[in-house]
Amino acid sequence: MKSTHIELAHGNGGILSRQLIQEICVKHFGNSTLNLLMDSAVIDIRAGNIAFTTDSYVIRPVFFPGGNIGTLAVCGTVNDLSVMGAVPIALSCGFIIEEGFAISELDEIALSMRAVADAVNVRIVTGDTKVVEKGSADGIFINTSGIGTLAADVFSVTNQKIEPGDAVIVSGTLGDHAAAVMTARQDFPLKSSIKSDVAPLSALVRHVLASCRPGEVKIMRDPTRGGLATTLNEFTPGTGCSCVLNEKHLPVHEEVRAICEITGFDPLYLANEGKVVIIAASDSAGKIVQLLHEHDLGKNAAVIGYFEKDENEKVYLKTDVGGTRICDMLVSDMLPRIC
Amino acid sequence: MKSTHIELAHGNGGILSRQLIQEICVKHFGNSTLNLLMDSAVIDIRAGNIAFTTDSYVIRPVFFPGGNIGTLAVCGTVNDLSVMGAVPIALSCGFIIEEGFAISELDEIALSMRAVADAVNVRIVTGDTKVVEKGSADGIFINTSGIGTLAADVFSVTNQKIEPGDAVIVSGTLGDHAAAVMTARQDFPLKSSIKSDVAPLSALVRHVLASCRPGEVKIMRDPTRGGLATTLNEFTPGTGCSCVLNEKHLPVHEEVRAICEITGFDPLYLANEGKVVIIAASDSAGKIVQLLHEHDLGKNAAVIGYFEKDENEKVYLKTDVGGTRICDMLVSDMLPRIC
Repeated sequence: MKSTHIELAHGNGGILSRQLIQEICVKHFGNSTLNLLMDSAVIDIRAGNIAFTTDSYVIRPVFFPGGNIGTLAVCGTVNDLSVMGAVPIALSCGFIIEEGFAISELDEIALSMRAVADAVNVRIVTGDTKVVEKGSADGIFINTSGIGTLAADVFSVTNQKIEPGDAVIVSGTLGDHAAAVMTARQDFPLKSSIKSDVAPLSALVRHVLASCRPGEVKIMRDPTRGGLATTLNEFTPGTGCSCVLNEKHLPVHEEVRAICEITGFDPLYLANEGKVVIIAASDSAGKIVQLLHEHDLGKNAAVIGYFEKDENEKVYLKTDVGGTRICDMLVSDMLPRIC
Repeated sequence: MKSTHIELAHGNGGILSRQLIQEICVKHFGNSTLNLLMDSAVIDIRAGNIAFTTDSYVIRPVFFPGGNIGTLAVCGTVNDLSVMGAVPIALSCGFIIEEGFAISELDEIALSMRAVADAVNVRIVTGDTKVVEKGSADGIFINTSGIGTLAADVFSVTNQKIEPGDAVIVSGTLGDHAAAVMTARQDFPLKSSIKSDVAPLSALVRHVLASCRPGEVKIMRDPTRGGLATTLNEFTPGTGCSCVLNEKHLPVHEEVRAICEITGFDPLYLANEGKVVIIAASDSAGKIVQLLHEHDLGKNAAVIGYFEKDENEKVYLKTDVGGTRICDMLVSDMLPRIC
């Protein structure tokens, strides 16, 4: 392919589209299903239930400390499947590219996607590329959709099993992704060495579930956009409980804490891209934290709070100084385009 | 929801995101799977094979004669599944929305998506909404991914079965979608009454396949971006055949023909969004055209050419005036953002 930058003709379905697909998608994602370049990929599913998810990624900047939009697009969708208890098996990849985008960057992004996909044994089996005029998009947007197989005895995927005494466990430090992306932005006045935690959670989650009986894990979620506080605000309504977090148990990287102090951001609302929050039966919390500690991605796992019977169904934070404050849903936008 | 236009906070994962999802996605797409608003949708699949596809839609303008980006996003993905012989069962929907986009338009788009989905008995089961700053996208982009079940005895999905004598059948007039969108653009000097052919092909395709034995239909495709000529250029290489079309048999709406004469566009390269091209065994061509004629969307179906043994593996057009010209893959971009 002679072009070094994306032209509108790379999106017209003709010969340049074909070349782009061959020299980026087939080269990096290549597998027996994708290479057929059919309108749909055919996948053999033996299980009776599959999980199906989609996410678009619009992160700015496209390359950030710890990853790029491609790593994020694979991890994010793999994680959405994993926290449902599904084993990810196939991904789609839809590129929307701005005219003039460097093909070398596209190449690097696709290569990163393949690397993560290989690491978690998932294939990119179908794709699409659209090109829009300069100024009609900001660099590149990626949609990945994914399917995964579900075991029959999967834990509940709703919050209906949450009850008083259940523990809130998080697999590691909060806010690394948002902090890394924020400091990587040109207009951000501080520099730091913090890296995004972007990582696929499938192996970690599988490691935990493999040693748990039904009922030990009540629900899981990866607290991305909106952070941990937002996820817990989604879990709490309808349970007849409030969720009480203990500030001193929250794992927060020192540098992230410093960035938050300076900027006024709250780590509870910062996006994570390689963390899982697990609501666990009280008797099982210790075991689950132990299981998380056995895996690289769960080394800093901790119990950070509990559910208590309370008709207000709120999320509370017991602060270091002995106070209690309500952690509501995010209202104003803290950090647009964090994922 | 009090907002009338999209704000960045509609994309932050917090309370406005939640409202937007409730008041657009749950309202219009609502079903027992989607309404759980989990990270992935769980779908029961009894068949052993599924088809999986993805497409992003970036069409300009968002509303055009005969449809809008939402109808297109559902039809396009349903059609990609249908031409693989799959029965579409579930779709995802990923919105990328520019700050300031009118929520009333988003509402109308989502409503159109639901209407088409209902008509073909497919559910939108999972979704995602991202918002980018004003100027970072052009209005709205939609990704739909889809899964469908495949019968065990599905026709071949590759071009390996194509052989000399096979007929090229198209289900109706060529280029209606591109012509409609082109004339709807503000900068286009002509007005016409032509409407996009955007339509879901699932019922038409199922009607044909239900009456065919394996081997009668060699391969199918919906000739969208790049048009019929591009699709046939994808079918031909590797077959040991060339594809010879007969210009006088090409079904082209009179108004589309006029637009092409004035603008220099070629209907063979114009996008269709509600047409299927079927390569059929020569003995079965008559029957298949008859089956197409029995359905509203196939009334103008015709045999438009044949495959002939030829190591050049080209697509040729026999013109009305007795000449023959090569129809190569599209190179330069005729109409960006047609889908």
